[in-house]
Amino acid sequence: MLEKIQFVKPEEIEARSMAIIEEELKSKPGNHIWSPEEYAVVRRCIHTSADFDYAEQLYFSEGAVETALKLIKEGAHIVTDTKMAASGINKKRLAAFGGQVHCFMDDPQVAAQAKERGITRSAVCMEQGAKIPGKKIFAVGNAPTALIRLYEMIREGTLIPDLIIGVPVGFVNVVESKELIIQSNVPCIVARGRKGGSNIAAAIANALIYQCN
Amino acid sequence: MLEKIQFVKPEEIEARSMAIIEEELKSKPGNHIWSPEEYAVVRRCIHTSADFDYAEQLYFSEGAVETALKLIKEGAHIVTDTKMAASGINKKRLAAFGGQVHCFMDDPQVAAQAKERGITRSAVCMEQGAKIPGKKIFAVGNAPTALIRLYEMIREGTLIPDLIIGVPVGFVNVVESKELIIQSNVPCIVARGRKGGSNIAAAIANALIYQCN
Repeated sequence: MLEKIQFVKPEEIEARSMAIIEEELKSKPGNHIWSPEEYAVVRRCIHTSADFDYAEQLYFSEGAVETALKLIKEGAHIVTDTKMAASGINKKRLAAFGGQVHCFMDDPQVAAQAKERGITRSAVCMEQGAKIPGKKIFAVGNAPTALIRLYEMIREGTLIPDLIIGVPVGFVNVVESKELIIQSNVPCIVARGRKGGSNIAAAIANALIYQCN
Repeated sequence: MLEKIQFVKPEEIEARSMAIIEEELKSKPGNHIWSPEEYAVVRRCIHTSADFDYAEQLYFSEGAVETALKLIKEGAHIVTDTKMAASGINKKRLAAFGGQVHCFMDDPQVAAQAKERGITRSAVCMEQGAKIPGKKIFAVGNAPTALIRLYEMIREGTLIPDLIIGVPVGFVNVVESKELIIQSNVPCIVARGRKGGSNIAAAIANALIYQCN
């Protein structure tokens, strides 16, 4: 059985994977017109999920990736709704530009406030994130309620996010919450439909960070 | 736009999602014969990814879930190859039975040894995990090289894992590494094919933990 395994040097595995993804994308249906910077995001989402649906579902508002790279280089923070995404984002590379990753899901005050107000912890997390001074990218990988709260704050005029990565996953209000963000006029990268997740949020954040020099 | 959002109480979102998954699974092709305990694992994988492919791809060796529940209740440890999976597993609930989650990816000695030997850090992590005393579940969500190393240790007779959750994701040796584990005769839960990930590894571990009382 072991003879079916090809030996690939550890440092070559990612490049080999990306080459396979690029090759297979050529034969997939759909009109794939991405800038090189957007393509790097698409590739990394597929790399982290082995799911080519992301080639169809990823939506980039005009200039979103350029905006993101500029923000990261200027030291923007990333606020996320899941500890898994916070864990997956390359914090060392982000910190080299001055930014930090923030996740408030474990904050007991967030839990208490969510319970009192009958809303999700993720929604309260976004409010906490909004208070951080400076430029901010919101990366939502789990809860549509986080995206909905962002949309409400934008409408109320209490928050202007610099960029939203909107990739919650699931079955309840997920599709709708992403469409809200697409229509909000905030620069955004969104995985339309039900799919997404903390792994996708981290993959998009990393695909952006890795393009910054 | 906001009127398209249904208000769902935070504590009801998961149950609503699971009901949608159950309903849609009925109309999917395929012969879904799962025990209730296996079904809970399938549902949670779909819940975390919105990807119904897991209904087709999840493989349970005979009695694997029963074995897993027994192990967790007896205080088994979980060794994983990714920090994201470690972050996503409910460590508090696991600790209630005496188990801990272990991930050695950030250990500088692991990095040094991997470099010296020309193998992946994930493979070295499995060797480190093998040294932990007591019952052990290996949950691999990222690197096929971790599964391959587990298989080699089983063959060498240096390790008998109590259970393997084999769900690495990707394009290089991923499919093959999972088939190795299926043929190893070790109790296992495997996502056949290319798909998987740290989110799926955590989802499976949690689906098991949540069934323990």
